[in-house]
Amino acid sequence: MKRVMAFALIVLASGVVLSTQNSRTTNDQAEIRKVLDRFATAFRVRDIDGVMTMYSPDVMAFDFNPPLQYAGKDAYRNNWEAFFSQFKGPMELEFRDLKVVASGKVGYAYFLERFSGTMKNGQKVEIWGRCTSGFQKINGKWLDTHDHCSEPVDFTTGKAALDLKP
Amino acid sequence: MKRVMAFALIVLASGVVLSTQNSRTTNDQAEIRKVLDRFATAFRVRDIDGVMTMYSPDVMAFDFNPPLQYAGKDAYRNNWEAFFSQFKGPMELEFRDLKVVASGKVGYAYFLERFSGTMKNGQKVEIWGRCTSGFQKINGKWLDTHDHCSEPVDFTTGKAALDLKP
Repeated sequence: MKRVMAFALIVLASGVVLSTQNSRTTNDQAEIRKVLDRFATAFRVRDIDGVMTMYSPDVMAFDFNPPLQYAGKDAYRNNWEAFFSQFKGPMELEFRDLKVVASGKVGYAYFLERFSGTMKNGQKVEIWGRCTSGFQKINGKWLDTHDHCSEPVDFTTGKAALDLKP
Repeated sequence: MKRVMAFALIVLASGVVLSTQNSRTTNDQAEIRKVLDRFATAFRVRDIDGVMTMYSPDVMAFDFNPPLQYAGKDAYRNNWEAFFSQFKGPMELEFRDLKVVASGKVGYAYFLERFSGTMKNGQKVEIWGRCTSGFQKINGKWLDTHDHCSEPVDFTTGKAALDLKP
């Protein structure tokens, strides 16, 4: 009888683990979406500290512009500052086809993004790009440990295709 | 006594779950590395079927070249075939700074890659790029559900920076 009860309890415990896994996955996805929403809100007002909140200290970033990679938050922040400093006033950021995959302590998100703004020389810019973020839950908080944002390239001309729309 | 035993068994069960989690993570990472190794082996001999083995049917790919995205394995395969058809003979593929993050059913990998080969017109090509892959464990098998490969772009000229080295 003891064995039966113990077995039943283990089955019950496993059942609880399994049944909570689905709702946890949904929660994880929702939390990552919130992180991205907060990032977008900070981006629109060029709030560099707000933007950087999303990243882990050791983030490895493959960004729109050279070099091939930015290793660590300081290097990436410098690039973000250089980017924001080219613009004046508020900016726009739209995510399209956002997909979030997450389970336990690992997740990733990808989306098309349209950003637009007015450069300091008055030129208006509007570009669609693609972004992927790798997330890890560290001390209970989802942090972006890997960023990859890019434009596709026409290899026959060597030029980036900056006028594409989804 | 029954309650004490039952409690002890649940603690024991949880302990087993936790202690196996670390080794499972290591296994997951090793399995994803194997998937990427097999992909690289297939790439080097331009084995399109071997290359496509890695991808889930609904893979969403942001590739080096336009358009912004390739939705689904068929669309992505067509692009792979067009790429391979430009080359003759075997190709080289090297991964640098490969990082794999995985836990449970979700993982991602990113790396710099150097690919080289001889085009059908005799021109030799060697380019460093950046790649990110999002993985999900589906029916016990790690599949790439999201690919993102790119070159950085110099926005002052609109040209891709194709001569960068890590």
